[in-house]
Amino acid sequence: MKQIQSNMCFDGEQRMYQWSSNTLNNEAKFSVYLPPKALHGQVCMALFFLAGLTCNEETFAIKAHAQKIASTLGIILIMPDTSPRGDGVADDEDWDLGQGAGFYINATQTPWSEHFQMERYIVDELYEHVVKNFPINRQKIGIMGHSMGGHGALTLAWKYPEKFKTVSAFAPICAPTQCDWGQKAFQAYLGDESTGDWSAHDTVALIQQKGALFDEVLIDQGENDQFYSQLNPHLLKQVCQKVGQRLMLREHAGYDHSYYFIQSFIADHLRFHSKS
Amino acid sequence: MKQIQSNMCFDGEQRMYQWSSNTLNNEAKFSVYLPPKALHGQVCMALFFLAGLTCNEETFAIKAHAQKIASTLGIILIMPDTSPRGDGVADDEDWDLGQGAGFYINATQTPWSEHFQMERYIVDELYEHVVKNFPINRQKIGIMGHSMGGHGALTLAWKYPEKFKTVSAFAPICAPTQCDWGQKAFQAYLGDESTGDWSAHDTVALIQQKGALFDEVLIDQGENDQFYSQLNPHLLKQVCQKVGQRLMLREHAGYDHSYYFIQSFIADHLRFHSKS
Repeated sequence: MKQIQSNMCFDGEQRMYQWSSNTLNNEAKFSVYLPPKALHGQVCMALFFLAGLTCNEETFAIKAHAQKIASTLGIILIMPDTSPRGDGVADDEDWDLGQGAGFYINATQTPWSEHFQMERYIVDELYEHVVKNFPINRQKIGIMGHSMGGHGALTLAWKYPEKFKTVSAFAPICAPTQCDWGQKAFQAYLGDESTGDWSAHDTVALIQQKGALFDEVLIDQGENDQFYSQLNPHLLKQVCQKVGQRLMLREHAGYDHSYYFIQSFIADHLRFHSKS
Repeated sequence: MKQIQSNMCFDGEQRMYQWSSNTLNNEAKFSVYLPPKALHGQVCMALFFLAGLTCNEETFAIKAHAQKIASTLGIILIMPDTSPRGDGVADDEDWDLGQGAGFYINATQTPWSEHFQMERYIVDELYEHVVKNFPINRQKIGIMGHSMGGHGALTLAWKYPEKFKTVSAFAPICAPTQCDWGQKAFQAYLGDESTGDWSAHDTVALIQQKGALFDEVLIDQGENDQFYSQLNPHLLKQVCQKVGQRLMLREHAGYDHSYYFIQSFIADHLRFHSKS
């Protein structure tokens, strides 16, 4: 692991690392924010943030304005890239497939399967790596994300509840099997729906199957979201009601899909994870 | 004036505009943050933020994390670009000259003088334009900036104290006539020092000449700033002591030149301008 950037921020440190990932079969970058408490060697809770389509390991660090509240609450932020990346990695000319669009699943199809193993990367390799290298309380790790990363956070939380104590999301893709973005990615990475087990990677289907797993889930959704038709928050609401999963779905008039929306409510998310 | 972007943010609106500037003899963009108070039609104080080398009208909006406190305090933020820009505008292959490096002065030399009139653009054309188009209290307009923009904020405040009631800066170039960045730009835009009147655009020289003009000036400077040798904060300190200008120069151990530094202290600057 090589530290390639470090900036003091709210008396903590915003860092970027590069390392060789066995799972992704490639070099990868991730960002970490260490609050003052962590720099002083005290054990902290940690929060993974999974970013959306076209984003990378810097996006949340630059645009979400989370460091101030993370500094105050003593939260370590872990910000992975959204896919494997580089010259030797398969890609597509569309921005919603390939590099920048890993969808936090393990691809089974050629040419994607060689590097696109984002699910195993996040929950196994990177998870264990950060727990080993930073003063993280393994019992207090949460996950959150935005859009494609909201899908990632919710699905990984429902698949691995033993790893993530809390989960929240901004404008998540709630049912990828029922929207264009998800169908296109799952078709490419997993193959046909009949054989590719798409529902194993769909939040609404997972909650339907596994039931309520968390005390509460926090979702913020802008009502002016330009990608609203891809997100299906009403399906998440329905399935949570059906299985008795407590859901705080906040719909905000006037807000869109951007990080200007995220920054407006990020402090609530960190407080939600911190108090849970 | 054409609005080309708008995002709700902390119950206010982050907007970007494009317009045709007579002074710059070109199309230009600027960003504005309107707090809820302004959206409700109430008159607000306004703050110009002048960005540094390589930055544009989006940089501060995305990276400085100022909207939350601007929303709370009811401050309109005005964020101009750092230079004229576009295919028909003179440029240089170096990042510290030409487009993205206007230095907030009026160029007198070929080929720069055709478009590089940033001083007149900011204090006359854009200033009057925003006062006319947004609910701004003309008696409560402040100016701040970062690096090259800190130079811009301080020099424009000392040249036009009737236009700017308050001034602050992050890591400003305090004495451009005494550092490489400033000498290179002034040589290009103004010609030789002997004829180009460089000292009329140098904060330290202006304070020496005009004396104390403001109740107090707030400057934040990181002690790990990678461009420290270009900035000369000690010269600003000396001249302010000499003429009796009250200066709050805060030097922060460990902080660098980045927006991670700016975001850590931006709330103090908005409060400083608000209470003054």
